[in-house]
Amino acid sequence: MTLQLPKGTRDLRPEEAIVKNKIVATLKNVFEMYGYNPLETPAFERYDILASKYAGGAEILKETFKFEDQGKRELCLRYDLTVPMCRFVGMNPNIKLPFKRYAIGEVFRDGPVEKARYRQFTQCDVDVVGVTEMTADAEIISLTARAFKKLGFDIVIKVNNRKLLNDLLLNTGVKKDKLETALLTIDKLEKFGLDVVKKELKDKKIDNKTIKKIIDVINIKGNNKDKINTLKKINKSEGLDEIEELFSLLNILNVNAEFDVSLARGLSYYTGTVMEVTLKNSSVKTSVCAGGRYDKMIGSFLGKGDYPAVGTSFGVDRIYDAYVEKNKVEQKTVTKVYIVPIGTFNESLKIAEELRNENVNVDIDLTGKGPSKNLKYANTLGIPYVLFVGEEELKQDKVKLKDMNSGKEQLMSPGELVLFLDKNLS
Amino acid sequence: MTLQLPKGTRDLRPEEAIVKNKIVATLKNVFEMYGYNPLETPAFERYDILASKYAGGAEILKETFKFEDQGKRELCLRYDLTVPMCRFVGMNPNIKLPFKRYAIGEVFRDGPVEKARYRQFTQCDVDVVGVTEMTADAEIISLTARAFKKLGFDIVIKVNNRKLLNDLLLNTGVKKDKLETALLTIDKLEKFGLDVVKKELKDKKIDNKTIKKIIDVINIKGNNKDKINTLKKINKSEGLDEIEELFSLLNILNVNAEFDVSLARGLSYYTGTVMEVTLKNSSVKTSVCAGGRYDKMIGSFLGKGDYPAVGTSFGVDRIYDAYVEKNKVEQKTVTKVYIVPIGTFNESLKIAEELRNENVNVDIDLTGKGPSKNLKYANTLGIPYVLFVGEEELKQDKVKLKDMNSGKEQLMSPGELVLFLDKNLS
Repeated sequence: MTLQLPKGTRDLRPEEAIVKNKIVATLKNVFEMYGYNPLETPAFERYDILASKYAGGAEILKETFKFEDQGKRELCLRYDLTVPMCRFVGMNPNIKLPFKRYAIGEVFRDGPVEKARYRQFTQCDVDVVGVTEMTADAEIISLTARAFKKLGFDIVIKVNNRKLLNDLLLNTGVKKDKLETALLTIDKLEKFGLDVVKKELKDKKIDNKTIKKIIDVINIKGNNKDKINTLKKINKSEGLDEIEELFSLLNILNVNAEFDVSLARGLSYYTGTVMEVTLKNSSVKTSVCAGGRYDKMIGSFLGKGDYPAVGTSFGVDRIYDAYVEKNKVEQKTVTKVYIVPIGTFNESLKIAEELRNENVNVDIDLTGKGPSKNLKYANTLGIPYVLFVGEEELKQDKVKLKDMNSGKEQLMSPGELVLFLDKNLS
Repeated sequence: MTLQLPKGTRDLRPEEAIVKNKIVATLKNVFEMYGYNPLETPAFERYDILASKYAGGAEILKETFKFEDQGKRELCLRYDLTVPMCRFVGMNPNIKLPFKRYAIGEVFRDGPVEKARYRQFTQCDVDVVGVTEMTADAEIISLTARAFKKLGFDIVIKVNNRKLLNDLLLNTGVKKDKLETALLTIDKLEKFGLDVVKKELKDKKIDNKTIKKIIDVINIKGNNKDKINTLKKINKSEGLDEIEELFSLLNILNVNAEFDVSLARGLSYYTGTVMEVTLKNSSVKTSVCAGGRYDKMIGSFLGKGDYPAVGTSFGVDRIYDAYVEKNKVEQKTVTKVYIVPIGTFNESLKIAEELRNENVNVDIDLTGKGPSKNLKYANTLGIPYVLFVGEEELKQDKVKLKDMNSGKEQLMSPGELVLFLDKNLS
């Protein structure tokens, strides 16, 4: 047996898990600030639920880890947090609407392993079920903006509407049966540029005149208001009305977002608003958060007609990468004070417990190492303060605190120590 | 397709997940207070790791969910958090010792489904690797006591030592090859009483004289000190020295624990201290936290000789059951203030955002329901405050706050509202 991780997975070492926990806690805090509540579903589901034609579809199913329990029931690891939410809503028909929930959890895809693509990754989802109004879409986008601000990122939020995009494409002459494939191509504008889009549309047998019209439409310039006004002249669309209303709400909310007519978001289940967040000034170029409105998914999944829903999903692993790059933090431990007893273990233990009563994270040498080995340990872990508790000093009711950054040492009483740490650690 | 959960699993509805999150956050806080750092490992491992004879053993392997990835690699869902930690330590031989880590995560057992026994459950583990001294055992027990105090439980902590128990049994005349089976029987004393233990020892072909000696030893009375002194007269044991040292440290730490000579804890990998926590005044009678020292497990797993380690595991699901029973809380939402706009949606939205800037959890009616429907919604969810924002009041810079518990309504300015909530929500 060789000690190995399963292919496509990774451990998060303490210094990594500390950062991830911080990011997740920030997201959780913001979700709750908007009245979203936690929902926890199992890491695995019955295969027939995930394989339902209303769920993720064949592509995603191919990458689903499948297994059986001892009773030969077919099960699989969840590939997202949306389908489990739909199952939960379906099994709880008396749930109070609007149902605002967040979920933070691991999802699993047995797919090709690439850079920054893992077979287990963390999603943080926030969704509201039961609101048809654009107020919900605005809330999700506003919440997203607040979350990234709290995390310290400058972002670009792009917003579009699938109903509008459909109407615009039909208006340019795209046939109904080519709508979806044209959409997938248009979605590539940002990443690959106009020429690639033109060529691909041509390959998909869309005629030149139509292509020209499409390009004109998805390439319109100006600020959000200009774009809306321009499109109003081209054709009426419920989607455009929704966009207008959404941007009016985002304006009230002081949220900066960009109306991007070329944004499609691949997934076929979106029915209205789509949105996508990218980071400014980061080597992480892919979207770090994306979502939209999917009014038909839950309903058709449950056989119940429309069931309005809108939400978004934060990609914690990518946010993590960007966060580490930006903040260059190397906090290797949660410990703030490391106590080195010098022939005073019992007294040191009492001081440790008193500091813990004050909510200070305290570690203490449990092994009776010498001072220099202890300093090395504290230094390796990046602990900010080391407290030496010596017999002589203790007789005078003093302890010696070393600031590991400045190297400065200070003698103080245990009472003074509490005040000092309270002031300097917050 | 019927909407169903996998057998033996459950969803945690928002009101349940809120409580669980609170418990987990408390444990996390206490773990970090003692300088333990998070470690995150994948939910699944390579089968050969979990199947290693140094890991959980045949019994546990039978209940392990097994599957393959697309490359036909054998994988399985982890059944505990200890084996993954051992693998991590093994793959990171340069890790700084002592290595103090906590892990919070789902574990999986494909076993019989009984009351309060699920196929997926949450474990919170805290372990220190690399300390031979009893200081580590004392720290783990002290941390455990603090955690349950913070959670508001009265507990009984029982402590014993496997080296001591082995020595005592050998001294009564139990043969080496019957040590383990005798141990398993003795472990039942607390639960089933003396007669059952006697009978079972007899069934296991231990002679009457030996049984009498065993009963005398495991049934000794008195406080911890009395017991230690009595046993000292019977025979010398390294285990007894450890117990004496451990209780001396627990004394300094003001931790109440009971030395129970009959405590064995079934698992064969324990090599010294064993401990177990039960709740006072609770219908949850099984242990809610248990652990001990396992100096040989990591080492033999890694082929490296002794590798001292001690830790404990909190059973979050049982703690959850006891917590809900004790606190009778029915907090169905994290929302503290629910805003009902009365023809003032845009202004209300701004008030909502301002309150969120002050870290208040605010929900707002997104659907334009009438006041009575909104009150019913807030009432169902148990939201403590409802804020009515009416046009007339707003002209006078006032909003109306309703305390949903007392029914009292108050007119105040948005500025006063912030101060009021700051005072009344903390």
